[in-house]
Amino acid sequence: MVDILHKVGISSSTLDDLYAALTTLDGLSGWWASDTQGDTAVGGVVHFRFEPGGIDMKVVELDPATHVLWKVVDGPAEWIGTTVSWDLRQVGDNTIVLFKHQGWKEPVEFMHHCSTKWAVFLLSLKALVETGKGAPDPRDIKIDTWN
Amino acid sequence: MVDILHKVGISSSTLDDLYAALTTLDGLSGWWASDTQGDTAVGGVVHFRFEPGGIDMKVVELDPATHVLWKVVDGPAEWIGTTVSWDLRQVGDNTIVLFKHQGWKEPVEFMHHCSTKWAVFLLSLKALVETGKGAPDPRDIKIDTWN
Repeated sequence: MVDILHKVGISSSTLDDLYAALTTLDGLSGWWASDTQGDTAVGGVVHFRFEPGGIDMKVVELDPATHVLWKVVDGPAEWIGTTVSWDLRQVGDNTIVLFKHQGWKEPVEFMHHCSTKWAVFLLSLKALVETGKGAPDPRDIKIDTWN
Repeated sequence: MVDILHKVGISSSTLDDLYAALTTLDGLSGWWASDTQGDTAVGGVVHFRFEPGGIDMKVVELDPATHVLWKVVDGPAEWIGTTVSWDLRQVGDNTIVLFKHQGWKEPVEFMHHCSTKWAVFLLSLKALVETGKGAPDPRDIKIDTWN
């Protein structure tokens, strides 16, 4: 098993604002996939649609406003069954995000791509919460021919 | 052991240009640390100096123009003894970088930070080779209070 791990800090922000960006369709479509639909409650499935394809995430755990856990139920073969977790905390005026995409079977080239791409989207999340404007797909930074 | 893995593709580039960005002081100072000095030959040590501190890398392997391997000989405690490898290949008019920072003992919070920060610097490397202008420290994108 190999994991993708990331961290960003978000200046002058609150846990409530950050949690909303991860748990509402309006928030999620503001930094990850502009085309985001579905049910964001525990047990619901959120449908993220990107230029290169789609990902369906089941919402497994929600602890307002500190923890979110998703499980991939449809999408790229390498993603199915993997989990994406978000742990949030307040430090002074800032919030911190610890991100983990876990359960990859092999460190394939696609995992390298996804690791870099997650960093791009975390910077988009940071921008959304700090400035009100993220860079979700299809306006995301393209890192290679896989998008 | 846990690894940081990344990938970027660099448009309209050659392996020679990309390899130069990883194996010359002029190249390295253009995307990673503006203050880069030392000996870039095999067995040499390159001194990277950042706002938050310094990293010394021993150049362990150089296969022009496809592979570079560094070993961390001084820097943050968690980094010492870890290795950073770069595998490069040409695909049509583009080049591809597969990046690995391996040998971390534990997936500590600092590793999450470094994973995201490496992605930021890989985008800087991509920009340098594509446009001639990267964003090395201290002009790098700051992702949290660790810089």
